[in-house]
Amino acid sequence: MPLTKQKRLEEFELIRWIQQQAGNGAHLALGIGDDCSIQPQQPDRDLLTSIDLLIEDIHFKREWSNMFDLGRKSAAVNISDIAAMGGTPQSVFLGIGRPKTIDDTEIKEFLSGFLAEIKTYGAVLTGGDSCGSPGPLMISVTVQGEVPTGDAICRQGASYGDAIYVSGSLGDSALALHQLQHGRQPDAYLKQRFHTPTPRVALGQELSKRHLATAMLDVSDGLIADLGHILAASNVGAELNLDAIPLSAAFKRLLDDDSALIDFALAGGEDYELVFTSPLKDLDQHINLPLAVTRIGSISQQPGLHIRQTNGEPYHCRRGGFDHFS
Amino acid sequence: MPLTKQKRLEEFELIRWIQQQAGNGAHLALGIGDDCSIQPQQPDRDLLTSIDLLIEDIHFKREWSNMFDLGRKSAAVNISDIAAMGGTPQSVFLGIGRPKTIDDTEIKEFLSGFLAEIKTYGAVLTGGDSCGSPGPLMISVTVQGEVPTGDAICRQGASYGDAIYVSGSLGDSALALHQLQHGRQPDAYLKQRFHTPTPRVALGQELSKRHLATAMLDVSDGLIADLGHILAASNVGAELNLDAIPLSAAFKRLLDDDSALIDFALAGGEDYELVFTSPLKDLDQHINLPLAVTRIGSISQQPGLHIRQTNGEPYHCRRGGFDHFS
Repeated sequence: MPLTKQKRLEEFELIRWIQQQAGNGAHLALGIGDDCSIQPQQPDRDLLTSIDLLIEDIHFKREWSNMFDLGRKSAAVNISDIAAMGGTPQSVFLGIGRPKTIDDTEIKEFLSGFLAEIKTYGAVLTGGDSCGSPGPLMISVTVQGEVPTGDAICRQGASYGDAIYVSGSLGDSALALHQLQHGRQPDAYLKQRFHTPTPRVALGQELSKRHLATAMLDVSDGLIADLGHILAASNVGAELNLDAIPLSAAFKRLLDDDSALIDFALAGGEDYELVFTSPLKDLDQHINLPLAVTRIGSISQQPGLHIRQTNGEPYHCRRGGFDHFS
Repeated sequence: MPLTKQKRLEEFELIRWIQQQAGNGAHLALGIGDDCSIQPQQPDRDLLTSIDLLIEDIHFKREWSNMFDLGRKSAAVNISDIAAMGGTPQSVFLGIGRPKTIDDTEIKEFLSGFLAEIKTYGAVLTGGDSCGSPGPLMISVTVQGEVPTGDAICRQGASYGDAIYVSGSLGDSALALHQLQHGRQPDAYLKQRFHTPTPRVALGQELSKRHLATAMLDVSDGLIADLGHILAASNVGAELNLDAIPLSAAFKRLLDDDSALIDFALAGGEDYELVFTSPLKDLDQHINLPLAVTRIGSISQQPGLHIRQTNGEPYHCRRGGFDHFS
């Protein structure tokens, strides 16, 4: 309960509005509106759960995005965690800490985007909490999904000799952010990749269903950082082929003028593509996947992540996993 | 991913520390540390889930509490939602948006209190997210629990003639808050009730296991507001006996000097006691419950909530569900 009750009325009204929009899920015995939601458990399913925070001026700036897209992105980055295990999203729980500067119309735009995004992936808003914030807009999202028992793809499991694949293209989102941070307007494609990333749910499901991947993560912190998590958890190393990193046409156009931009594809982050390992060397050629994947390297016995150029020379990324954007 | 990566290192370090503390749950196939946690589903169990936000200066003030107790309370208020369905808490997911003014020692104190509290109820920290906050301390907690299939006690279900019960005593927490807001130091007992409320897990479990309650909620917004939720969802009314409202000795001492304080017991909130309805009229006398419960009234056919004094006169609470504390 808040320290003052004045805000409480607004909270109740907002929660009521959310409840009306939420709908019901066939997997639920009770949806939004009680102390807890109730979901009958299924004997042949594993429950997957993930939580994410998004805080204004830390994760997003309101002047860069509209509230609808911010709602979509808030849902997408969390659903991406279910995709990264090869699961199917089912229930989403949303907490909103709302500053006074955000009016009802804006918060409903946010919620409309949020609800549209989760609906795309068959998930249902199943619980929520709303209150005032004396500071920034704060969004907390918890997503639950399911996967057939034992089929979830974890970060450990990569073995020597496995091929390393990544879906889609890398670096678009980080490059858009870089441009926004320097007062430039990114290309429409790059902007869309930053504001409304696409969780790769269908690809993740296909990989888990057909047991094609030994380890998988979504690329949220940048390829080097996230592949690094797989390597550390699996106790192996990797060799990457720099020229194999998949890039969009929009990214390549800018790369032509400044070759250093390649580091956004290696260490930028917020791609929400899937990076995974597989014993199959030609996954992209012989198996019909719902999304293009590119083989970018292979797992080595020797620890560490080594990137090589086509001429065999090692490449050193100048953007570490933890550097400031400059 | 945050807009700048500098904070990211701290985040990774904090998450690592949390992971080390988290421990494993027998109900989990995979705990904290991957994109999602993995929990095998059980055929004879319902999954219960609830989310809560706690934001500095909205829900708590750091100068009133130490970080250990704040951690305990953040867990307790969320676990109380599982108790209110009659369930057993299992997994807790914690998001922390942390201002720069909170140092590592303080955040670890918070986490120690949080972990101690969830351990008390057999739950395990199963996932988390941490980032900087440019404003207040923000805490998001999602709890999952279980209950035998169909045994959860919802807010709808109260019937004409049911007795209304409440556990423990009411008003202690709101009275402590009132005193703190007026610069007075509450009695140690009242203070404890405000800072470290006790979720009534064992009572809730007993009521669901023995199918003793027809409807139940935890008292977080105040008895009138929360009982009002039960009445609205069940489409019934209620008559309450003012003199039956259970009060602590500390509360009664202050009530002797100011009879208007009774309204804190009726509409204060943050009691985290259980209010429930039951067809049994003498639950408190004939059944051995893990916690004292008091019969405070009964469900009527006529809608609305009517409070009567011993002399039969109606009593009108001057603190509405939505009034400012004064």
